Amino acid sequence: MLQSTLFYSSKKEAPKDSESVSHSLLTRAGYIDQISAGVYAFLPLGLKVLRKIEGIIREEIEKEGGQELLLPALTPKENWQKTGRWDAFDALFKLKGANGKEYALGATHEEIISPLAKKVIFSYKDLPLYLFQIQDKFRNELRAKSGILRTREFLMKDLYSFHSSQEDLDSYYKKQIKSYNRIFSRCGIKKKTYLTLASGGSFSKYSHEFQMETEAGEDTIYVCGKCGIAQNKEIKADKCPECQNSVFIEKKAVEVGNIFKLGDKYSLPFDLKFKDKDGKDKTVLMGCYGIGLGRLMGASVEINNDQKGIIWPEELSPFDIHLIQLNKGSEAKEIYSLLKKKGLDVLYDDRDISAGQKLAEADLIGISKRIIVSEKTLEKKSVEVKERGRDRAILVKIKDLVK
Amino acid sequence: MLQSTLFYSSKKEAPKDSESVSHSLLTRAGYIDQISAGVYAFLPLGLKVLRKIEGIIREEIEKEGGQELLLPALTPKENWQKTGRWDAFDALFKLKGANGKEYALGATHEEIISPLAKKVIFSYKDLPLYLFQIQDKFRNELRAKSGILRTREFLMKDLYSFHSSQEDLDSYYKKQIKSYNRIFSRCGIKKKTYLTLASGGSFSKYSHEFQMETEAGEDTIYVCGKCGIAQNKEIKADKCPECQNSVFIEKKAVEVGNIFKLGDKYSLPFDLKFKDKDGKDKTVLMGCYGIGLGRLMGASVEINNDQKGIIWPEELSPFDIHLIQLNKGSEAKEIYSLLKKKGLDVLYDDRDISAGQKLAEADLIGISKRIIVSEKTLEKKSVEVKERGRDRAILVKIKDLVK
Repeated sequence: MLQSTLFYSSKKEAPKDSESVSHSLLTRAGYIDQISAGVYAFLPLGLKVLRKIEGIIREEIEKEGGQELLLPALTPKENWQKTGRWDAFDALFKLKGANGKEYALGATHEEIISPLAKKVIFSYKDLPLYLFQIQDKFRNELRAKSGILRTREFLMKDLYSFHSSQEDLDSYYKKQIKSYNRIFSRCGIKKKTYLTLASGGSFSKYSHEFQMETEAGEDTIYVCGKCGIAQNKEIKADKCPECQNSVFIEKKAVEVGNIFKLGDKYSLPFDLKFKDKDGKDKTVLMGCYGIGLGRLMGASVEINNDQKGIIWPEELSPFDIHLIQLNKGSEAKEIYSLLKKKGLDVLYDDRDISAGQKLAEADLIGISKRIIVSEKTLEKKSVEVKERGRDRAILVKIKDLVK
Repeated sequence: MLQSTLFYSSKKEAPKDSESVSHSLLTRAGYIDQISAGVYAFLPLGLKVLRKIEGIIREEIEKEGGQELLLPALTPKENWQKTGRWDAFDALFKLKGANGKEYALGATHEEIISPLAKKVIFSYKDLPLYLFQIQDKFRNELRAKSGILRTREFLMKDLYSFHSSQEDLDSYYKKQIKSYNRIFSRCGIKKKTYLTLASGGSFSKYSHEFQMETEAGEDTIYVCGKCGIAQNKEIKADKCPECQNSVFIEKKAVEVGNIFKLGDKYSLPFDLKFKDKDGKDKTVLMGCYGIGLGRLMGASVEINNDQKGIIWPEELSPFDIHLIQLNKGSEAKEIYSLLKKKGLDVLYDDRDISAGQKLAEADLIGISKRIIVSEKTLEKKSVEVKERGRDRAILVKIKDLVK
C-alpha cells in the first residue's frame, strides 16, 4: 500500500480527553477515531490490527474444536426475561421496534445461544459442543474511558461450551486457560498478564480473569508473591487459595479475558437437556469464555511502546514491512514491487515530505520491520533493515534482500 | 470437518412462516436460524457462505482502490440532525444511553463517514478516496419477511467515494457498475440481475439499483425489451431512457445492490471541502454503493436450487467437497486426510445413518462437488465424483483423485 493514498493522518498532540497511553498513541498514529464517548471507528491501520487479533483468536479456538457462527445484536426481551437479566443486567441497551417488540442489544449471548443449542443437542452423542463468534457487543456504561480499553460498543470473541459432565467441563476449561495464554503470548502481553481468581457465581467457587498489569487499568489485583496467581479485589482472601502463601503484591490491571463455569445457570431456564448413555434426561453443563478484541489491541499498545510510539509484536503489526524512501530515485519503488511479489504486505512511504517526518511517523505507527532506502544506503547497493523494537540497524545488499 | 460434529441439524419441513424458497431451504439445511422476526443467526454453514461472499466483495472493491475500515453501530443523534435524517429516516432504530446521550443504530453511514473524511481530506491531492466497510446495519422495519431477503439487522458492504470533480465521480461510478456485475456473476445471480434506473434524489436524475428477478421479491421492475435496462416502478417512463424503446416486460424482483451519486448532499452539511489546484476551496462530491450480504446469499439460493435443495455456485459453496461415506471401511477416512493435506476444505459425512438420508441431506445442503465412497465404487478402486448441479457422475480411480 502506498502511504500517500492510505486513509490516515498522524497527529502530534494527544486527544484532549486522553486517559491512557494506548488511547493517545492509537489516535495520534491514525488507528482509531472517536465517534462519540466510548464509541470508536477503526481506521484502515486499526482494522488491519483488529483482523490480525481476530485471526489469532480464531486459530487458537478452532484448534480446540470451536465452531464459529454469528448471532445478531438485536436480541428479544423474552429471552432476557427468562433468566431474569432483563432487569438484573444494568448495562443493557434497550430499545423498541416499530412493530412494538422490545430488544436488548447483545451485551453477551448466553440468552441466545442456549435456546439455539437446544435445537441441535438431543443426546450425549451431540456433546461436547463448542460454539463461538467474533461479533459486536454493546454495554450501556454510565462512563466510558481510556480509549478502546473500556467502550460502549466493542468487538468480542465469545465462546460457549456444552458438556455432559462436570469432568468434561473441567477438562475443557483447563484447555481454554492454555488457549488464552497462547493468544496473549502471540499478542505480546503474556509477560504482564496474570491468571486471576474472581467470584464464581452460584456454580463454582471461582471464575478466572486474565488481568494485564497497567496503570491505565481500572481493576486492582493482588498477585501472590509465591505462586504468581492473582486475586481480584472482590474475593481478597488472606491466604492465596492456590498455595496458602500470604504475601501479595497489589497491582493496577485491566481485564483482557474471562472464563466462567456457568454450570446449569442458563441450561435450566432454557430447559437445555440431553439423553445420557443410561437413557435418562440430564441438564447440559455450560462454560463461557470471552475476549474483547479492541481492548486486547489497546492493552498490547499499553505495554508495547516507547517515547516515540507503538512497538507492535510481529503478529499484530498492521503491515509486514514499512518501506521508507528517503531519496529521489526509483529504487524504493522497485524494491516495493519485489517485496509484494514475494507475498509480503508492505506499507511504502512514497510521500514527498522530510526524512525526519517520515522516520518520526514510522516510529509512531510502529510496524515491526522497517526498510530504509536512501542515497547513503544505495552507495553500498544496500538498504537499511531495522526492527522497531531494537536500536541496531543492519545494511543488507539489495540482491540479498528477499532471502 | 466431520459432519458428525458439525453444529447443524436438517429439517424435513419448511418453517411455518416461510415466504420464500431461500428462507425454506436455508433453514431446512441448517444455514440460518430465526431468532425473532427479521433477525437471524448464521449457523456454521451459513457463516461460511457469508464469509465467501464477503471475500468476493472485498476483493472486487479493493481491486478499484477501496480501503476498508470499521464504523460503529451506535451513531450520535447530532450527526443525523445535521442532515435532517433523525426525523426524516423512518426506519431508524433510536435509543438512549445511561449517560443521557441519544443514538441511532447505523442504518447507513453517510452521517459518520463524512465528518470522518473531513479529518483527512484537505487538498485535491487527498482525492479521490474510496472507503468501505462490511458491517452490521439496522432497519426498524414495520414488517420483515422472506427470511434473509428483508431483515431488521443485516451485514452490509457500504462503500463511499470522495471526488474533486463531477467527471471523476462519473468515471468511478461506471467502474462500480462493472465491479457489481463481477460480484453478482461470481455469486451466481448475474443471469437474472438487471441494472435498474431508480430515482436519483436532488443531485442526479437517476440512481441505479441492481434488481434480481424472483417471485420472492417485493419490487416491480420494467425491463426494456430492446436494451435490457430496467426501470423501477417509481420512475416508470413511457419510453426507455436509455434507448427510447417503449416495450417493457414487467418482473417481480429483489434489490441486491444500489449505487447513488450523492454529490454534495452530505459534504455540504458536514462542510467537507478541499483546496483545489487553483487554490480555491471547493465542496467534495460523494458517491455511495451498497450490497447486503445476507440478502445476496438469499438471492443466490432463490435462483440456484432444484426440488432437492440448494445448488451453490462454486465460489459460494460452504465447503470445496462433500465427501460421503456409504460403506463401513476406513477408505473414506483416508481420502478425507488426503484431500485435507491438499488444502481442500472438506465436509466428511462420517455419520452412521442410511445412505438415502445422507444423499438427501447432501442434495439439500448443496455443496458444489461431491465424492461418494461405497462398496460398489471400491470394487473398482474408485470413488464417484459428481457436481451438485449436474446429473452425470464419473468414477475416478482413488490413485488419480488428487489430480
